[in-house]
Amino acid sequence: MSAWRLVEDPAPEPAAGSAEPAQARPERPRTGARRILVVAAVVLLTLVGAGGFAAARTGMFAERPDGCVKPDRSIQLYAVELPKDGTQIRLGYGLTPETASYPGPLMEMMEGECLAITLHNMVPEATLAALRTNPDHPLGVSLHVHGVKYTQDSDGTVQSGSYVPSGGSRTYTWYAQPRNNKTGAQGTAGYWWYHDHVVGGPHGTQGLSSGLFGGLVVRRPGDPKPDRTYTVVFGDRQSINLRRGTATDTCTEVNPQPGPSCLVARKGERVEFVVVGIGNDMHTFHLHGHSWAATRTGTVPNGQPFADTIPVIDNKTLGPGDSFGLSVVAGDSVGPGHWMLHCHMQFHSDAGMSTMLHVLDENGNMPPGMDHQHGAAAPAAAAAPAPDGDTHQHN
Amino acid sequence: MSAWRLVEDPAPEPAAGSAEPAQARPERPRTGARRILVVAAVVLLTLVGAGGFAAARTGMFAERPDGCVKPDRSIQLYAVELPKDGTQIRLGYGLTPETASYPGPLMEMMEGECLAITLHNMVPEATLAALRTNPDHPLGVSLHVHGVKYTQDSDGTVQSGSYVPSGGSRTYTWYAQPRNNKTGAQGTAGYWWYHDHVVGGPHGTQGLSSGLFGGLVVRRPGDPKPDRTYTVVFGDRQSINLRRGTATDTCTEVNPQPGPSCLVARKGERVEFVVVGIGNDMHTFHLHGHSWAATRTGTVPNGQPFADTIPVIDNKTLGPGDSFGLSVVAGDSVGPGHWMLHCHMQFHSDAGMSTMLHVLDENGNMPPGMDHQHGAAAPAAAAAPAPDGDTHQHN
Amino acid sequence: MSAWRLVEDPAPEPAAGSAEPAQARPERPRTGARRILVVAAVVLLTLVGAGGFAAARTGMFAERPDGCVKPDRSIQLYAVELPKDGTQIRLGYGLTPETASYPGPLMEMMEGECLAITLHNMVPEATLAALRTNPDHPLGVSLHVHGVKYTQDSDGTVQSGSYVPSGGSRTYTWYAQPRNNKTGAQGTAGYWWYHDHVVGGPHGTQGLSSGLFGGLVVRRPGDPKPDRTYTVVFGDRQSINLRRGTATDTCTEVNPQPGPSCLVARKGERVEFVVVGIGNDMHTFHLHGHSWAATRTGTVPNGQPFADTIPVIDNKTLGPGDSFGLSVVAGDSVGPGHWMLHCHMQFHSDAGMSTMLHVLDENGNMPPGMDHQHGAAAPAAAAAPAPDGDTHQHN
Repeated sequence: MSAWRLVEDPAPEPAAGSAEPAQARPERPRTGARRILVVAAVVLLTLVGAGGFAAARTGMFAERPDGCVKPDRSIQLYAVELPKDGTQIRLGYGLTPETASYPGPLMEMMEGECLAITLHNMVPEATLAALRTNPDHPLGVSLHVHGVKYTQDSDGTVQSGSYVPSGGSRTYTWYAQPRNNKTGAQGTAGYWWYHDHVVGGPHGTQGLSSGLFGGLVVRRPGDPKPDRTYTVVFGDRQSINLRRGTATDTCTEVNPQPGPSCLVARKGERVEFVVVGIGNDMHTFHLHGHSWAATRTGTVPNGQPFADTIPVIDNKTLGPGDSFGLSVVAGDSVGPGHWMLHCHMQFHSDAGMSTMLHVLDENGNMPPGMDHQHGAAAPAAAAAPAPDGDTHQHN
Repeated sequence: MSAWRLVEDPAPEPAAGSAEPAQARPERPRTGARRILVVAAVVLLTLVGAGGFAAARTGMFAERPDGCVKPDRSIQLYAVELPKDGTQIRLGYGLTPETASYPGPLMEMMEGECLAITLHNMVPEATLAALRTNPDHPLGVSLHVHGVKYTQDSDGTVQSGSYVPSGGSRTYTWYAQPRNNKTGAQGTAGYWWYHDHVVGGPHGTQGLSSGLFGGLVVRRPGDPKPDRTYTVVFGDRQSINLRRGTATDTCTEVNPQPGPSCLVARKGERVEFVVVGIGNDMHTFHLHGHSWAATRTGTVPNGQPFADTIPVIDNKTLGPGDSFGLSVVAGDSVGPGHWMLHCHMQFHSDAGMSTMLHVLDENGNMPPGMDHQHGAAAPAAAAAPAPDGDTHQHN
Repeated sequence: MSAWRLVEDPAPEPAAGSAEPAQARPERPRTGARRILVVAAVVLLTLVGAGGFAAARTGMFAERPDGCVKPDRSIQLYAVELPKDGTQIRLGYGLTPETASYPGPLMEMMEGECLAITLHNMVPEATLAALRTNPDHPLGVSLHVHGVKYTQDSDGTVQSGSYVPSGGSRTYTWYAQPRNNKTGAQGTAGYWWYHDHVVGGPHGTQGLSSGLFGGLVVRRPGDPKPDRTYTVVFGDRQSINLRRGTATDTCTEVNPQPGPSCLVARKGERVEFVVVGIGNDMHTFHLHGHSWAATRTGTVPNGQPFADTIPVIDNKTLGPGDSFGLSVVAGDSVGPGHWMLHCHMQFHSDAGMSTMLHVLDENGNMPPGMDHQHGAAAPAAAAAPAPDGDTHQHN
């Protein structure tokens, strides 16, 4: 029975040893209603298997947040097991099982939009069992999101029952509540992230460290439109985007393909970063040659009187759970080049938490010259100036 | 003798080995005046005991900050020893000796107000001695405050002599200096805190870790008026509000009483948080389902052109000494529920730095459904979905 | 060969095992041009020695950022070895070799200004060799700057080749790009810092920990004009400005000379702080009795409608790489006194990361009274109130 109730005028405390206080009794009829619903859930379970269990388990809380009458859009999301990284189990979210990765796919919403995401848990139960230390902790994967609105049904937590057993699926509803001058709602436009909250323990610590996280951008009409967006995640394993050791830079010299591990842009393009902190440590996002404003979008509204008060920064500290966004005009004033992007905690950057934003010229070419190496793992011979000026790393 | 002086035109350095520089001499008459005052102090000491000693010891610095002609209000504050937490000594501030707690009582001021607080040190000297490792460090308790104005006499530090021996008392004066367009004074409205600065060492490290801290809100006319205010302190012992292990949630299902360890509200109420960091570690304040603006009050002035630039966040990193405030409309859009409030550093939340904001519906009832468990210490059996949907923890 | 190129329409991936993709070929002529330049560099090397090597090595990237047609001002900067601090090697930047220090000299620029800084590396190669653990890492000193604009040639990194071997020199160009309403450039006015990025490893970790860093202020017309500016650096060695143990306070009672280790001001003076974080740890800047606004300059534009939303703080967390500035009116409302400035991480302040802002009265005198001691290293006997009120530390 669940009889939470805040009474208007607190009754006197019952004497020690007294029976259940009277206030709880009016709630009893609700329990009856609950029982009926549970029976229905059990029937459903028989029909659809374990996957329907989680979905049917709740239902007393609203399915959708106020303001979302029905979802504007629906997507499918898959939680899958990826190849191990050494002995480390890796999991990822993907819009298809085949494209799952860490970070997971960048989600984009417009303020005012309501999005239904059906999460399919394709991670074997044995894998989830291997990631927990407490044998009583439930096995499942969830989707917890920052910044946007959702009810308890979409909280993605153990105590709300909003997670998905292996082989099951569950629909989470996210509402990008817009600003409202009347209610004072401040809007949800921002740079957010989503992650598991269940794998391994009640805070999803093993889900997070295995790779179950991704970025979310909620845009507001009029926001600067980026030419490219990169998600950069700082975690505990001394690397960007959860890779151990040196951040992998998969850029090739010819036709480098933008992606989670190849940050490339042409001069003049607006490059957007979604920056997320996970784990247990503090980190800093530092980008050489570029800076941004400490505003919602990282841009400054020149010409507005208050613009003069806004700090401009090129290094921002973030803790676990923090997320922020910014955009820069690649190469503005500073030109093309291999611009370092690293954590400014020295032992983090020395251990490999460092990569490059490769800014090509307007024609898509990189002027010849010194080439890029990444921190500690850079071949030392290449790091030293070579007599012929050639340091091509990608042949 | 105290002859600090910045001369207008620095005289040439005296030759090595020369005697005292001439500039110090004009200060001598002051020393005479000081001697007289000290005699008075000694007399006072005889009359009122050690308690009067600290109060009488200074006096060359102003007693009250500029702008405070005389206090608008006076309160009594008691520093007392509380029952040990295991082997850990606990101290607390209280408006009465009987109600001392950690965090101490929330102080509230309006900008422009001047407040006199008389601190009575009821902590036994033997307890204070047990908390210091350096036998030469003085024994006493003090009141140091952030954000508002005070003179050296109210600094609460060893070197200013503004602390209170056991059995003594001392009046501290806080001035919530208002904004002033002429002088550029930026005002003191904000979310601050107060703490001991003397117990155990010159930075009050043992006073802080024992419990001598509390929140302070300075309001400005027109600020949003909260329905409920909760002080949340993040410290080193992996818990909120300094409790070891799992944060205690003392909410009962029927008629939960709001308090430091029972965060409860009805849907639609404006809930204010005063968030304080103490100790040595970084933490983050994360609240599920709710977000706030990165402004002085945590609210956003919709309709103002600059409102669009303000970041909205749901996770904020804080270091020791930091304090901030925010308010949210409980359950706005997301509805009632057991909304987690936790540090997003995973080993902190896993170790118990996690509690709940219980949002009831407008009638003060909680819809039935999954119930709340707090992190690592939650009984695992209850965490698993029960067939009958009952997870009541409080019977 | 350096053939970085982003092609407009990606050609199909070459079959596995195929030879070099065709797209690389059009770049070949550039390689020829590069070879010619390299020959020139080798000739130059013969003429000017190793010092000219670094300067000649690049050249394909622009020497100066867009907007800087030619430098408005040129200065010389020297990197030198300082006396060891115990067994710790110390390096410093100076405007002359004799005045090198850590932090290095405060640099000041106006927005719109272009500054050429010629760095002379006077640090012996053997010293640089002693600071590296990887024998393949190049030996040199560099100048990397935050916030302002510079090309790859002035990046101060290994991979751009923009560093200086012992005995050599190199000119770095910094451009304090102004705001531009048309391009949206947000301006570079702010509180920044500069540092080595090469000594010991690719992130200059040993250069930083040895002392190669300093503050930079870029001002905008109309900014508040400080009477005094102090640079305060928080690093790993539990002290301010990189000194081990207790922060040295070199203030003398008579005619204290403002400097990196003597923070002094008269009541009413505008005191500006440039605050920088280096190393691996988080720190907080806390100043007793004074507060500031969370804006670009630390001041609040009273009378503007948005001023009311700006948080006012007296404790600010910073991570490595972060820098910020603020100014306070010394003693405003609170009067003269020995106002503590410390990190609020308790084990940092207890270990000595604590100093004083000595605020004298308008005539340059300090009222007699309790005197200053600095945290853990303060002589305990002096810390206890002395019967005659005399605690002068500087006789």
